[in-house]
Amino acid sequence: MELHGTGIGLGVALGPVVRMAEPLPEPVDRPSHLDPEKEAERARGSLSVVAAELQGRGKKAGGSAQDVLEAQAMMAEDPTLMDDIVKRLGEGKTAERAVFEAFASFREMLAAMGGYMGERAADLDDVSQRVIANLLKLPAPGVPNPGHPFVLVARDLAPADTATLDLDQVLGLVTIDGGPTSHTAILAREKSIVAVVGATDAGQLDSGDQVIVDAENDLVVVGPTEDERVAAQERIAERKARAAAPITPGALADGTPVPLLANLGSADGAAGAVELGAEGVGLFRTEFLFLDAQQAPTVVEQQEQYTRLLSAFGGKKVVVRVLDAGADKPLSFLNDAEEENPALGLRGIRALRESETILREQLTALAAADAATDADLWVMAPMVANVEEARYFTALAKELGIRTAGVMIEVPSAALLADRLLAATDFASIGTNDLTQYTMAADRMLGTVATFQNPWHPAVLSLVASVGEAGRELGRPVGICGEAAADPMLAVVLVGLGATTLSMSPSALADVRASLARYTKDDAIAIARAALAAEGAAEAQQAAKDAAGSVTAGHDVSAPTS
Amino acid sequence: MELHGTGIGLGVALGPVVRMAEPLPEPVDRPSHLDPEKEAERARGSLSVVAAELQGRGKKAGGSAQDVLEAQAMMAEDPTLMDDIVKRLGEGKTAERAVFEAFASFREMLAAMGGYMGERAADLDDVSQRVIANLLKLPAPGVPNPGHPFVLVARDLAPADTATLDLDQVLGLVTIDGGPTSHTAILAREKSIVAVVGATDAGQLDSGDQVIVDAENDLVVVGPTEDERVAAQERIAERKARAAAPITPGALADGTPVPLLANLGSADGAAGAVELGAEGVGLFRTEFLFLDAQQAPTVVEQQEQYTRLLSAFGGKKVVVRVLDAGADKPLSFLNDAEEENPALGLRGIRALRESETILREQLTALAAADAATDADLWVMAPMVANVEEARYFTALAKELGIRTAGVMIEVPSAALLADRLLAATDFASIGTNDLTQYTMAADRMLGTVATFQNPWHPAVLSLVASVGEAGRELGRPVGICGEAAADPMLAVVLVGLGATTLSMSPSALADVRASLARYTKDDAIAIARAALAAEGAAEAQQAAKDAAGSVTAGHDVSAPTS
Repeated sequence: MELHGTGIGLGVALGPVVRMAEPLPEPVDRPSHLDPEKEAERARGSLSVVAAELQGRGKKAGGSAQDVLEAQAMMAEDPTLMDDIVKRLGEGKTAERAVFEAFASFREMLAAMGGYMGERAADLDDVSQRVIANLLKLPAPGVPNPGHPFVLVARDLAPADTATLDLDQVLGLVTIDGGPTSHTAILAREKSIVAVVGATDAGQLDSGDQVIVDAENDLVVVGPTEDERVAAQERIAERKARAAAPITPGALADGTPVPLLANLGSADGAAGAVELGAEGVGLFRTEFLFLDAQQAPTVVEQQEQYTRLLSAFGGKKVVVRVLDAGADKPLSFLNDAEEENPALGLRGIRALRESETILREQLTALAAADAATDADLWVMAPMVANVEEARYFTALAKELGIRTAGVMIEVPSAALLADRLLAATDFASIGTNDLTQYTMAADRMLGTVATFQNPWHPAVLSLVASVGEAGRELGRPVGICGEAAADPMLAVVLVGLGATTLSMSPSALADVRASLARYTKDDAIAIARAALAAEGAAEAQQAAKDAAGSVTAGHDVSAPTS
Repeated sequence: MELHGTGIGLGVALGPVVRMAEPLPEPVDRPSHLDPEKEAERARGSLSVVAAELQGRGKKAGGSAQDVLEAQAMMAEDPTLMDDIVKRLGEGKTAERAVFEAFASFREMLAAMGGYMGERAADLDDVSQRVIANLLKLPAPGVPNPGHPFVLVARDLAPADTATLDLDQVLGLVTIDGGPTSHTAILAREKSIVAVVGATDAGQLDSGDQVIVDAENDLVVVGPTEDERVAAQERIAERKARAAAPITPGALADGTPVPLLANLGSADGAAGAVELGAEGVGLFRTEFLFLDAQQAPTVVEQQEQYTRLLSAFGGKKVVVRVLDAGADKPLSFLNDAEEENPALGLRGIRALRESETILREQLTALAAADAATDADLWVMAPMVANVEEARYFTALAKELGIRTAGVMIEVPSAALLADRLLAATDFASIGTNDLTQYTMAADRMLGTVATFQNPWHPAVLSLVASVGEAGRELGRPVGICGEAAADPMLAVVLVGLGATTLSMSPSALADVRASLARYTKDDAIAIARAALAAEGAAEAQQAAKDAAGSVTAGHDVSAPTS
């Protein structure tokens, strides 16, 4: 039997299922036999135990997991929440019930806010469960520890669970809920955990079932045959060998260089990316500097961060994207929260233009950091839709001392006019996630239309081809910085369509490097043509596989294309 | 001096400004010297006077204005609202203040709901103002009557104002707020009022200022020179002559037929459209049958409506679009209101597929109506994004007895894959409004990104060209049913790009018919090429104008291209 979901990363895992415990039952609403003050004492005690526990786990986990866990700890100690609990205790409720109700009402408010805040609702549930478990002296819900390696199957994982997974024990991860942009998916990607998320039928799995988690092919094989097991073990071994292979610069089989760069969200990841062989940074997101702020950080604060980043990449290319606020990342000082369709709203360069001081300060800080280090800084603008915007941004960046200024291509119009757009700027970088979302007119965060979010769709590939062709004709570099570049076969297609560099999560570098090394430039072009001519995304992926098989049949390759 | 805004329609008007009164000041929150019951009596009296007045205006106006005015009358008599007013009167407030506060709180709730309900907030303000004016025995805010023809300048018009404009007196309309999809714009389009909306600087205009309202060129000329006045008068006279010209089938100068069809939202408009020379219907929207319903209408109910429509177009082509619910037109029984970006959500064919019974019933009703009349019924699906959807809809429609089934092209991917999409269905109709919205990734209902919503953008034109080319190669008809077809010069460009029919608001038919008659097929192709090669929307429009001037310089035309 096969279960379908969304694979995160490219790995394969094989092992026995262990199911995560289902959530605690809802505490019964019965009168307490303790007085409200005693109950309040119990609630306060459990809240602070849980807060301390979350803090501790955060410190241990580090990185972006720490931020999430510390935010959860703050939720547990929110004074408004405690006031609400005390009010409910005053009505004679038990601490368990009052905690449950107060968190539920807080959760509802968050969910009503939608977007980023709405997604935090699940974090709140986790805190609530932990507090109630502590009150009931039950084991906190969380990752089981069966004492042997296992495939974890859960409805979805809370950040606290993902952050503290024992990676020597957890072979793979299957969730019933959650999409490719859920917390679980993001953290699985960051930690290179083999995962299939949103496998809606995974509820049927029982602890002890043998499964193959095949992230590359978006499926879970239940009760595999001996042949399937052997094939999976071979793929696991191959992947291990690739990860252990000496790191060489990204290149095609004929030697054509394809620099492989890292997508980074903060300077913290720089050392890890270099270790995994990143030849520079293809997308440095600067939102982290702004997201928790009530106003934009100062030029000096920004300059420090950028200098830290650039210092880690001496002599190498670092592409920084200026602030991309709006849509799912609204900033109170820049965006209007009242937009009906924020993904189609005043975001990216549109919002920056309305608050040009923020843009000027960011460019000034970037130019200063560039001058203070020997990295090769490139700066690009998000959400550029037309030539006029490309011209505006390029001129402003140059005026403020940026040597290389370019644009993100993520709006269909920008790709369609790539010939005119690239003539007005230094380089382009294609953001395949948003480009796919707009080309298919399907929200990439929305589960009900998730099947449209597939960068293999020939319509998306044709837009990449149009940018690639313009880049070739005008001699302008064309990078890819969306998740598409992390798919080893699609990476070959993108290069065949004219991409000159690929940028991805550092954990994907080894697989992509190995894949590129199998094909010549002519192979890549032939494979890309096959995908372009297909009718839909699945057909394009199959056509590319078939074409890859037939081109490599002609020359000696080190590994099968599987 | 020139003011810029969004022109609705193509007319020109010349005359003196009359400003509409600004809204009443907010009633002061002071204790009433009447007892609450007396105040409640006053409030009840004014509310029912206003409700009756709105009902009366509605009857007089008819059509869609009547629906809007009757909805407003219902707001004035809403019992929940009266309860809220009485509660506030109980606190010692005056009737004026209580009405003000109750409406404001109701308004806030509506605004928070966003979308269609959110837009109704302005209607509520209008009712509130009328009630307060009645309580204060002040003249109701509304359209002034200076006793001579005038150009009305207002912040925005409430439906009650637009519906009751005396069209013999109002030469033109300029609003400070409001976009191309506001009520004012919709009603101006329907009634062929010369209008420029969203002219943000129009607040500077004083009553008595002479202005030219130039909708075709999106501007208002303040204090025009004698030459400008003469030119405007000539254009007004030409347009009158065109409207009075005998109605002939749409065709280019060389005789190439370009059938001119009507966009209709209900069967009521059929007779009027035929009178204005519509050669059929290019887009019949069926949402009106569903919008006020708690559930889908029955097959029999639908069949009656469709038969009524088809009977009005005996022997002619009628293109019906199946239910396009979602985005700004959500239906409780079909759509999930919780979408973060409804324009990118489960709408159109995506939503129908999830509720296939509704689609099957609609197609069944349409096939029955087709069998009962001698019109030529074509049926199409909205929001088709890929080949698989086109194939699904076409097969289902054929199975249920529809002879000609096609797809709307409004998602960029559908246009990019037009060659494969058209091979899977009978015809395509391009919805330029949504196609522009998605191509530019800019919400067409959002004021802050309104400048992106321009179908002249070469990126949009290139997608139209790709559909036109596929249609030509495969011998499939390609219609245009977005507002773009109503722009006389753009209509020529669209035909040059391969459109075989154009569909528009009936009021635009005369202008487009006259424009097409000036150019041969080769002219249209040359003009389209010039627009396609431009850098942006404004440049494309200018390039088309220039190309039109140079091609017509070569042959004898009946009117200048202005």
